[in-house]
Parts: sequence; structure tokens; C-alpha cells
Amino acid sequence: MLKPFSDRVSGLQPSAIREILKFTADPEVISFAAGNPAPEAFPVKIIEKLSSQIFAEEPIGALQYSVTEGYAPLRERLKEELAQKGLFKSGDMVVITAGAQQAIETTAKILLNEGDVIICEDPAFIGSLNAFRSYGVRLVGVPMDGDGMSVEGLEAALKANPSAKLIYTIPNFQNPTGLTSTLKRRREMLELAKRYGVYILEDNPYGDLRFEGEGVPSIKELDDSGAVLYAGTFSKTLAPGLRVGYLLGCEEIVKKAVVGLQTSTVHTNIWAQMLTYRFLKEVDFEEHLERLRGIYRAKYRRMRDGLRRELPERIELTEPQGGLFIWGTLPEGRDMNVFCSEAVRNKVAVVPGNAFSADERAVSRSFRMNFSTPTDEQIDQGVKILGKVARELLG
Amino acid sequence: MLKPFSDRVSGLQPSAIREILKFTADPEVISFAAGNPAPEAFPVKIIEKLSSQIFAEEPIGALQYSVTEGYAPLRERLKEELAQKGLFKSGDMVVITAGAQQAIETTAKILLNEGDVIICEDPAFIGSLNAFRSYGVRLVGVPMDGDGMSVEGLEAALKANPSAKLIYTIPNFQNPTGLTSTLKRRREMLELAKRYGVYILEDNPYGDLRFEGEGVPSIKELDDSGAVLYAGTFSKTLAPGLRVGYLLGCEEIVKKAVVGLQTSTVHTNIWAQMLTYRFLKEVDFEEHLERLRGIYRAKYRRMRDGLRRELPERIELTEPQGGLFIWGTLPEGRDMNVFCSEAVRNKVAVVPGNAFSADERAVSRSFRMNFSTPTDEQIDQGVKILGKVARELLG
Repeated sequence: MLKPFSDRVSGLQPSAIREILKFTADPEVISFAAGNPAPEAFPVKIIEKLSSQIFAEEPIGALQYSVTEGYAPLRERLKEELAQKGLFKSGDMVVITAGAQQAIETTAKILLNEGDVIICEDPAFIGSLNAFRSYGVRLVGVPMDGDGMSVEGLEAALKANPSAKLIYTIPNFQNPTGLTSTLKRRREMLELAKRYGVYILEDNPYGDLRFEGEGVPSIKELDDSGAVLYAGTFSKTLAPGLRVGYLLGCEEIVKKAVVGLQTSTVHTNIWAQMLTYRFLKEVDFEEHLERLRGIYRAKYRRMRDGLRRELPERIELTEPQGGLFIWGTLPEGRDMNVFCSEAVRNKVAVVPGNAFSADERAVSRSFRMNFSTPTDEQIDQGVKILGKVARELLG
Repeated sequence: MLKPFSDRVSGLQPSAIREILKFTADPEVISFAAGNPAPEAFPVKIIEKLSSQIFAEEPIGALQYSVTEGYAPLRERLKEELAQKGLFKSGDMVVITAGAQQAIETTAKILLNEGDVIICEDPAFIGSLNAFRSYGVRLVGVPMDGDGMSVEGLEAALKANPSAKLIYTIPNFQNPTGLTSTLKRRREMLELAKRYGVYILEDNPYGDLRFEGEGVPSIKELDDSGAVLYAGTFSKTLAPGLRVGYLLGCEEIVKKAVVGLQTSTVHTNIWAQMLTYRFLKEVDFEEHLERLRGIYRAKYRRMRDGLRRELPERIELTEPQGGLFIWGTLPEGRDMNVFCSEAVRNKVAVVPGNAFSADERAVSRSFRMNFSTPTDEQIDQGVKILGKVARELLG
């Protein structure tokens, strides 16, 4: 009696990362495959205290239905902070979502018809790519270099795809590559978006986790035309289990996003929104971020130093200045799948690069490594194993 | 520079109920327009205690990323309880969602193409109708009588719409009418669904809140063919702000729903899932439900008795045996919009019936009244005002 699924999801597969993560159920396997924040980064004691306060002071508010737009004090606070950073412009609006993922999925839902084109970095975050695919959108990938998305590639893609409506980018410490777009590149992307009449969806989950170098203005900050939608999240700076993120953009778009969210989750868990608000209000957030940056800086350097020591030089490694990921690329002609399989057989899991390709059939010589989730000991042992596997394969 | 929205959401409007609720921001307005559980029904002290336990015992688990399928102990517990009730069948699977609303929206996303047909009760729950509309689905409404959806109407709709894929129903204390489908009617609906090869989406938010009469087996319980998907929620029995619900159905469908959910919210707030699990495990749920039924029975009877006393007999009222709503219908030829406007002008808000029509342009002589949210005093005063408005209008 089973009828086929809708066209939009018929070909949609579970994230390839989840397949890798199956191996990591084996406690002997060291996982560099996840993208979880470091557990020691969670401010558990403060969250516990704030949660008690919520139940002592406003229990009914924390349990009753709320408005789709989000908890008003949190939205006000966010608006102020985003305005201070130059992100919230006149005519803008912010809505709270269940993580940046829901902001991204809802943006696709309200803006794109099936068959429309989204231009993205290639490789790009698989969660977003699958959200776009789930609306039958066509993905056109533009290669990256050390400065971000190729501008020539972007303009060629815009010319070749008049039905393109959106450029999707993670400009800071991109997932999966760890690369950061330069200011010049951001300006060029914005100019092209305006010239071709498409939106930019700027996804910035890691921006606050810069542990080295100088910050670069966000594309949203550079824009005064309303062309940029901005997805933010507290998943990496507070806790991902809360599922609190937001969508920022011009009021007309965000209002339509609210209508979309109303039909999907009604509103984001209200206790989590209250908790986030109280955290922003009562904690020195910049000091909190400094602590997190210290944790990630140390973990990153440990993995980077280990990889430099253990891996053959012919394996290229990106050098992220923040975020959670390092991207490795094997020499020309080498099979990344063999490397990843051998790594897992030797009890280290990394994510094969093709998981992040706009074109799922594309081949890749790269792999993603995460340094936030493993312990120091796991990092040390894992890079040694990767070194052994790489030397055996590359000779 | 603004490009049009996607076709699927271009015409989508915020829920009409929200427009009504704007009036209720005026503290002088008595709202019979909401659908919120009674605040006194929330087990605040227990939730507070369980929340503390979570942070004492498994804080990292409550804050870290989790799996899309849902918190494993909650899923196991639900599976056991649903199996005991005869709802979980061999080959079934359950996934946790952000309320039943997300279960319903995701079902539409994975099953229906734009232009496909969903057959629903007319009137029906506006949140579901808007979720369906948000995927460009065509809604075909089937009138209800005191026994539920008209079977003749359903068969005619199935014959007339070969692209129908889903029948949507709230068989217990339907929103907005408060009507309950008879066992005979449920069997007939199921037979028709099987004969025409369509799914039934059974939405049961209020089933546990039966405060009068005998329970009727759910359609899911009657089915062994895999034709029934079932949306459940803890919004009415625990607390809606938690946003914890679930989708139950055959594994093939629910697995695809998991892929859909992964691209939208990744997973439901994990603290809320843990809390729900601990509540089910540590509290006598049946005793808890009995307390809620007592609250709703008293509120219902108070409103019913007041309406019988105050309203002209020519206004028909449904007599729900559970749930949150009473449905009133003006005599033939009377304008419901005038009645609702006059009511609001006199400081009582009810929801105009056309908000719940499958065809948004349809006229309605009915209106929805909620008895769970107002206090006893508000119920007493509100029905008096409605009586005055009705007598003035109907003479």
C-alpha cells in the first residue's frame, strides 16, 4: 500500500557523517568525525543555577505556549547586541529558531521553489546542503581557495544559473574546511549578489570562536541593501542541546519565516530561550567566550602540532584561526576513501570529503578532522594512528 | 531587490487566531480564543525537581548534541506504553518531534508533492491546515456530523481526487468542534483509506483529556496495514512550552521523517526530552491525568452551564466529552463575523469559524470557544457578555 515519498525527499539520505559516527559507537574508536563542542566548554553550573531561577520566578512562562517570534526579552537583547556589532540594521528583524539549522531550512522553504538554484561553497556544510536538497533545490558548488569562495567561480555560476536565488556561505572557519573568507572576498560576494539580485545566506556558527588572528567584518555588516540573511546560533557558544539559534534579516523576509516556523515547531522550547536570555544578561559573555577560545586554541594547536609531526608533508592541511575543524587533502591521484577506511580500521574516524560536496557523486581527496570533541589523549593517539595509516598508504 | 517568496508560502498567512489574540493583549478582554492548557494543570514542582535531577546527574547529556530520532530512554518508554495501548505495532517506529505540529509538518513534507491532495475534516485545526498549505498541498474538506467526518463525503472526496495521499483527522474532541468520531466511523474511514490506498494521519492531542464518557479505540489501534500515522504530544498532558511530541508509524515512513527532521531542527531540545522521560518514569501518569481531567471537567461544565443559561437556544453548541473547545453555531442566515466583532467590542474574544475552513474563502456561522485558559471568574463573566451580545443580535 506504500505510496512513494514526495519528490523533494525521495533521494534524500541521512547525513553521511552519521554513517561514520556508527563506527564511533565502538568505544575503542577515536572520533575526529563529530562536530560537537567540547563538553568542558559547557557552563554547567551557571546553566543549572539559571534554570532553577526560571522555575522559581516564572514557571508558568517557561511551560506555557509562547509566541513564534521568540521570547521577547531574548529578541530585544539580541537585537541590541547585533545592532552594537553593526549586524542589525534599520528595517531588520530577528526570529528565534531551533538552532541555526532551522533558520537555514526555513529560509530555503520560504524563498525557493523546487528546481531553483542555491550557490554554495564547495565543499560546504552537509546539514545545510541536505536542508536545501529537502526542498528540491539544485545546488551549484563554487570552489574555494585560501581566501574563501572563488569570485570568478561565483560570477560564472550566477551567469549560468538565472534561477539562482541564494548564495550560501560560512565565511568564518568554514565547515568543513576551516577556511575564513577575506574582507575583500566578502565585499566582492556582496557586490555580485546585489548585481545579480540574489540573497546571501550568511551562516556564522563559529564566528565567536576565533582563537587566533584578527576578526573580519561579517557580510551582513557590510550590507545596507537587505540582501543578506544571517543565521546565528548559541550551539557552539552555550550548548547545542538547547537548540537555540536565530535568523536575522529584513523584516519582510523574517516575517514570512515566522509564518513558516508557526507551521513547523510553533515556537522554540521556551525554557531554553529564557535560559539563553538570562545567560546573556547575567554572565560576562565576552569573558565566557575567552574561556572557550582558550579551550579550542589549545585543542587546535595540539592537533595541528601532532598532525604536522605525524603526517607526511604531502598531505595538505588548512590552518583555521577558529572553529572546530581542520581539513586535510591527500596528494593528487590518491584515494581518500581508502585512507578513511584504513583510518577507521585502525580505530580513528574522520569524515570523507565527498560528504560535503554539492554534487554527491563528486570525488574528493580531502577529509575533515574535528579537534573540539576528542580529549587531549585521544588527539595525541589519534594523530599518531593517522600518521601511521598515511605513511603506509603514501609510502 | 526583493524577489518573490516560494510559491508554497506566497499565499500563506499567519494563523487567523493570532489576529484575534491581538485583541486579547488588552487586559480587559476575556479570551475564549486561545488553546492553551490551564496553567494550574502544569506540574510545576515535579518538573522543577526533575530538572534539578537532570543537571545533577547528566548535565553534559542535557546540553550536548543528541540523535535526531530522540532521547533513547524516552523512545523506549513511549514504545512500551504505545504497545500496551495497542498503538505500536510490529514494524512500527517512533520519533520524537518538537510537538505534534512538527510531526504533522514533517509528514506533509516527506509524503506530498505540491498539488497533491489532503482530505481533512471541515472545519479542522488551523495549525495543521497551514502546515499542509506550506507545502502547496490542496486541501479538500469533508463536512462533519455528530459522529465525525461524513463517510459519504470522504468517499466522494477520494473518488474525485485521485492525487489524494492523506486523510487528516483529530478523532477525539476535535479542534475546533470538540466532536469525537464514533468507533463505526473510525472503522469506515480506515476501510476507505485502505481501499483507496491513502494514508490516515491521526492527530490525537486531546485523547488523554477525556473527562466524560467512554474512550473509543484510536484508528491506529484498529489498523494492521500500516496505513495510519499517528501524531502524539505532551503539550496538553505535561506542558506545551517543552515542545515534545512524536510521530508513530511504519518504520519506512518514520525513517524518512527522521531524515527530514535532521535537516530542520537536528533534534528536539534534549533537556525537555529527558524531563518528559523522567516524568513518565517517576510519576503515576494515570493519576496525573485524572487530576487534569478534573480541572478540565470542572471548567467545561462551568462554561457549558453558563452558555446554556445565557445564550439563546437557537445557537447550537457541541457537547465535547474532553479536550479544550466548545463549538457554537448561529442560526441560518446569521453573520458570524458580526457576532465575533461585537463580542470583542464587548471584551470577549472567540475565534470565527472560517479560520478553520479548508477553503479560506468559505463562510461560516460558527465560532470556537476555549474553556481551559480562562479562570472561573472569566468564564462566568464572559458567557454573560456573549449572552448579551447574542440576544441583541438575534433578538
